[in-house]
Amino acid sequence: MTGDWVVIATGRSKRPEDFAKHQRQAVEEIPEKLCFFCYPEETDQEDDVLIYKTKEGDWSLRVFPNKYPAFARSQAMEHFEEGPYFGMAGIGYHELIVTADHYNQIANMDKELVAEILDAYQDRYIDLMGKKSVNYIEIFHNHGREAGASIVHPHSQLMAIPVISPYVQGELDGAENYYRANKECVYCTIASWEIEKKKRIVFENDDFVAFCPFSSRASFEVWVMPKKHKPYFERITDKEKIDCAEVFQKAIEKIYKALNDPAYNFYLHTSPCDGKDYPHYHWHIEILPRTANWAGFELSTGIEISTIEPEAAAKYLRKI
Amino acid sequence: MTGDWVVIATGRSKRPEDFAKHQRQAVEEIPEKLCFFCYPEETDQEDDVLIYKTKEGDWSLRVFPNKYPAFARSQAMEHFEEGPYFGMAGIGYHELIVTADHYNQIANMDKELVAEILDAYQDRYIDLMGKKSVNYIEIFHNHGREAGASIVHPHSQLMAIPVISPYVQGELDGAENYYRANKECVYCTIASWEIEKKKRIVFENDDFVAFCPFSSRASFEVWVMPKKHKPYFERITDKEKIDCAEVFQKAIEKIYKALNDPAYNFYLHTSPCDGKDYPHYHWHIEILPRTANWAGFELSTGIEISTIEPEAAAKYLRKI
Repeated sequence: MTGDWVVIATGRSKRPEDFAKHQRQAVEEIPEKLCFFCYPEETDQEDDVLIYKTKEGDWSLRVFPNKYPAFARSQAMEHFEEGPYFGMAGIGYHELIVTADHYNQIANMDKELVAEILDAYQDRYIDLMGKKSVNYIEIFHNHGREAGASIVHPHSQLMAIPVISPYVQGELDGAENYYRANKECVYCTIASWEIEKKKRIVFENDDFVAFCPFSSRASFEVWVMPKKHKPYFERITDKEKIDCAEVFQKAIEKIYKALNDPAYNFYLHTSPCDGKDYPHYHWHIEILPRTANWAGFELSTGIEISTIEPEAAAKYLRKI
Repeated sequence: MTGDWVVIATGRSKRPEDFAKHQRQAVEEIPEKLCFFCYPEETDQEDDVLIYKTKEGDWSLRVFPNKYPAFARSQAMEHFEEGPYFGMAGIGYHELIVTADHYNQIANMDKELVAEILDAYQDRYIDLMGKKSVNYIEIFHNHGREAGASIVHPHSQLMAIPVISPYVQGELDGAENYYRANKECVYCTIASWEIEKKKRIVFENDDFVAFCPFSSRASFEVWVMPKKHKPYFERITDKEKIDCAEVFQKAIEKIYKALNDPAYNFYLHTSPCDGKDYPHYHWHIEILPRTANWAGFELSTGIEISTIEPEAAAKYLRKI
């Protein structure tokens, strides 16, 4: 999509089952009683912007602003210059999407709860996409210390930001160029190819597919994509949420079992909300298990090295 | 240079001295006796491609091929296609540059030894730059487990590869565009600005400057650059090696003291060796302390978040 390279170096490689033998760094264990996310109202969190309740009246999911935002709420875009440099105030929205159970991570959730999480993503997306300062909305999830999680309690984050990120811009340009040359969406082309060949498929149902990408950035990387052409995540239907939740949850569960509860990140890539149309993009979720750190080569080049072939990773995940 | 954004979010920030309070992950301690790099000939390493000796006849530095190369030696470029995908065989050279002392890291070396390391970089660079399959040579160093080091014994790595990496390509394009618009090298412009303003300077001598970049990718990031316009690292003179070694070693020593021996990576960015001229590029070394992991936001966007202003980091490092 982006024209960037990845390196797959199986010479230094292990067998698929060896990836489970890593030592996890523990996230500081906070007793449930003191957890910021179990009792948000007692730990000085800001007010909810969204709350879902169970039939019994307990909360099952809530969304509130991050106490330590990386982007600060404001509508005004302030630019500044200093000599040869330029910058802008870091404005936007930074929210936390929290499920009620301190211990129940996505690997063990039922698909209805995962669909509820997708529902909350959509709800917050639609609320923020029209804000003047917001041109892109990042939704992501960090699990485990190596993945940047500082709190055990499962939560996702949403950052609504004024710029389109280089990675997404690369995908948008790639999709546009591919469409011009081939009159087809590059993501649709890939989905059909993978479904036909089967060798990189992890799991699928009627509407969604999970597969290890040919150009995986990380060992055991998995993408979850709608099979039909869908540029805009925010237009997902209730039926699609359940179908997506099933495939996505299974992918996470398989990674959890195959790699012995590894740290991972996932994030949603969808069309920007900057007022333009992106008919040739195709929203998807990318899941990146964190079995290796970026080292000097990756930082210097931007080229990632993974140590298992995606075909071998997919085969192993399929069998779980 | 690249047009990419970084986020500096001091709202979640600590004081400069708090960055030293991290818990380092230990790199597996191998007794000196069993160390692959203390006794390369007894541990099945391949033959040296370069060795420097002391006056007493002991070795002080040696270079040999990596036993587990990420790129395999070959002159033949093999491309392949599979449906919508394409790839090429991962050919190139992957070498290790090892100093003799198991414990003496760059933070504690004298500048003459650091100049010898630069000399070895140059020597290997010149030997490999003419190979048919080599278009770029990455030289980098991983220190500490969070930075990807799996062996304690200090060593740098060299990877001679067939493609120009996206990060370097972005810098080359940025330098070219800046030159067209301003008839000046963007790196020279930045060096003059920093030397005049002083607020992001860490250390300097007549020919080299170390500073925290305005758009730092990481907390306490430091760049080391020749003050004069120099596109090609491989043309460094012996006098420049000593001057560069002094500034570079001081920068590493200051980071070591300020952050309590943190994990870090450094790497050299120089003009590609693909047979073209790059008159508007400017070689430099980038040092990235690893006080935080890339999390979901960074992986999703390619935009890095750091939690201290480069001016505050530089001020703290200057005082060390």
